[in-house]
Amino acid sequence: MAVSDAAPTVAGVGMTPFESETDDRLLDLVERAALAALADADVTPTELDAVVVGNMAAEAFTDRSGLANALVDSVGATGASADRVENTSASGASAFKRGVEAVTAGHAERVLVVGGEHMSAVDRERSTEIVGSIVHGTERRHGVTLPSLAGVATDAYLREHDADRAALSEVAVKNHGNAAANPYAQFRTPVTREEVESSPAVADPLRLYDCCPTSDGAAAVVLAPEGDVRVTGVAGATGTHAVPERQSVLRVESVAKAGTRALSAAGISPADVDVACVHDAFTVLELLELEELGFYGPGAAWKAVLDGETAVDGTLPVNPGGGLKARGHPLGATGVAQLVELVWQLRGEAVGRQATPAYTGLAVNVAGFGNNSICTILEADT
Amino acid sequence: MAVSDAAPTVAGVGMTPFESETDDRLLDLVERAALAALADADVTPTELDAVVVGNMAAEAFTDRSGLANALVDSVGATGASADRVENTSASGASAFKRGVEAVTAGHAERVLVVGGEHMSAVDRERSTEIVGSIVHGTERRHGVTLPSLAGVATDAYLREHDADRAALSEVAVKNHGNAAANPYAQFRTPVTREEVESSPAVADPLRLYDCCPTSDGAAAVVLAPEGDVRVTGVAGATGTHAVPERQSVLRVESVAKAGTRALSAAGISPADVDVACVHDAFTVLELLELEELGFYGPGAAWKAVLDGETAVDGTLPVNPGGGLKARGHPLGATGVAQLVELVWQLRGEAVGRQATPAYTGLAVNVAGFGNNSICTILEADT
Repeated sequence: MAVSDAAPTVAGVGMTPFESETDDRLLDLVERAALAALADADVTPTELDAVVVGNMAAEAFTDRSGLANALVDSVGATGASADRVENTSASGASAFKRGVEAVTAGHAERVLVVGGEHMSAVDRERSTEIVGSIVHGTERRHGVTLPSLAGVATDAYLREHDADRAALSEVAVKNHGNAAANPYAQFRTPVTREEVESSPAVADPLRLYDCCPTSDGAAAVVLAPEGDVRVTGVAGATGTHAVPERQSVLRVESVAKAGTRALSAAGISPADVDVACVHDAFTVLELLELEELGFYGPGAAWKAVLDGETAVDGTLPVNPGGGLKARGHPLGATGVAQLVELVWQLRGEAVGRQATPAYTGLAVNVAGFGNNSICTILEADT
Repeated sequence: MAVSDAAPTVAGVGMTPFESETDDRLLDLVERAALAALADADVTPTELDAVVVGNMAAEAFTDRSGLANALVDSVGATGASADRVENTSASGASAFKRGVEAVTAGHAERVLVVGGEHMSAVDRERSTEIVGSIVHGTERRHGVTLPSLAGVATDAYLREHDADRAALSEVAVKNHGNAAANPYAQFRTPVTREEVESSPAVADPLRLYDCCPTSDGAAAVVLAPEGDVRVTGVAGATGTHAVPERQSVLRVESVAKAGTRALSAAGISPADVDVACVHDAFTVLELLELEELGFYGPGAAWKAVLDGETAVDGTLPVNPGGGLKARGHPLGATGVAQLVELVWQLRGEAVGRQATPAYTGLAVNVAGFGNNSICTILEADT
């Protein structure tokens, strides 16, 4: 295998349904997603050169290290190179990036990338504690949590941009509506703006239905030369970690940098993107990321959402699979699940939620409250 | 940055002393190693394109995820891509491999790779439990531990090869002797064969001084174009996970495969290697790995050790830095520390333990009881 300038291709994808709670073990989840993607790619486990697992905290949730090794053993890929990549809530996309680099470097030809998390393996209090370890150390010592940061950002967005709260609610409404057509989504019941706005306050003006759930699940992609979806760009970037040290709570520099790098690698501009999966852990993040990625100017995304531009039949369908908000957010799985959805979109297989046209897709997976992001561009092999 | 066929180069290395116990936090350890390597490379943090952290179980030992992000923030490398790689006790070498692939793929030019672990952050019982999660799930449920596997392998080696127990003792004696000259080693006191053989039985015939300790510490390397040590081969491979399913308890297939792949990538044979760092978590593993790597035939390594061939002044100096046995084994740090030692050897800077000649170095870092290995070849830029 020699170093290659050709874009690696995705030959198969698969995932488990995302659920609030499952009795399956983490290994069962990643194995099921892996086997689905391998079958879809028509690649046998023994053909794999490398296995990369994206997972945030198996040690904390399920008391195990070496998940990649356990997966290699259980799917029968012994011989392949294997490791796990962790980047908190962006572990999935970081694992994918690692797989792409192995292919481009000529170290592997057929790579299985699986993201998974089993958050219900511990009780709610412990789960909150584990997720809480994502924020900056100083913030954590002062009791700052992700929802508290999202509350501050939501408030700032509404005030600084004189935005309508209905736009945030509409992000949730849109994503729940999309998830209703996604058989793998955790929430398949549509919600109304009124339901979002009357849901319990978490950190006012942030409400419960502005937040993604905790979830169990796994998603997988197979990189192989015979694939029909090209990976034309994948790039990561860190941004200022502690939120109070940022220029503004409304800036997510890491998304802007990763987006610029990935778009530049693909040689395209935001206008060329047909469909996007962004990291809507909180509704306000969907707006901020669309602005950082250059789809809309600062403070302009909320109007676009209200105008229906980000709906499946809009000019830029965003989170057609339901996003983190409604498909669910098993931390290490999310970045891979976004790519699975993009592949289904680019293949025209997203029944009931198909973006048209769908030749070029973009995904952004975000760690913490925006301190490390990975942006990926996939293009249909037309 | 374009895809490159040229071998990436190591421009700087650094490490913390390895210790049984430290009050420093994990982040302090990885930061200190990182800054030492950056200074050695004359690279500033803002020049880094990527940061990769090798760590086995920060969630379990120190209740944190996102170590790569915390490191980027603390050293001032914001903007760089960053993530952590986990592959149990081979996390360090897996992280290095990931860094090399990022460079070869043209995704990064200057990469900081840091491995670290803070095992003393929990009590001995919990630490044993965390390390115990490395073995195959079925083995773990039946109470099998790494030392118990090592005991079985030690017994089999002595019986099947009619080997002299003194050879195992000599591995410990040699590595402790080498560590005495390494200011970063955990144990700097030489030991005698008699002391090894009269140390407490762990899993007869395996004795306490046949085993590596638990440790705290970190090690780092900087990949940059101006480096003077070339990475001519790096490859990983998994082998059969559950030991009872292997052809023999004396086979470590993953080492053989990773070794063959790395040597082939470098275009060299075992006879071209001047100095080696192998994964001597137990003395018997040093012998088995030397045989799997092709340095000695099956059952022949023990005689070579007794003949002094693997001593610093022998034909193939092995573990001149003291190995896991005496330098210490902070899980995620070890694979990187092996490369730091090789770089010092290749530069002729290993005072008191210098191999001569030292143009070509090989390291092998092993996960679990041999189920996943990474082999790296470094060559001096002569």
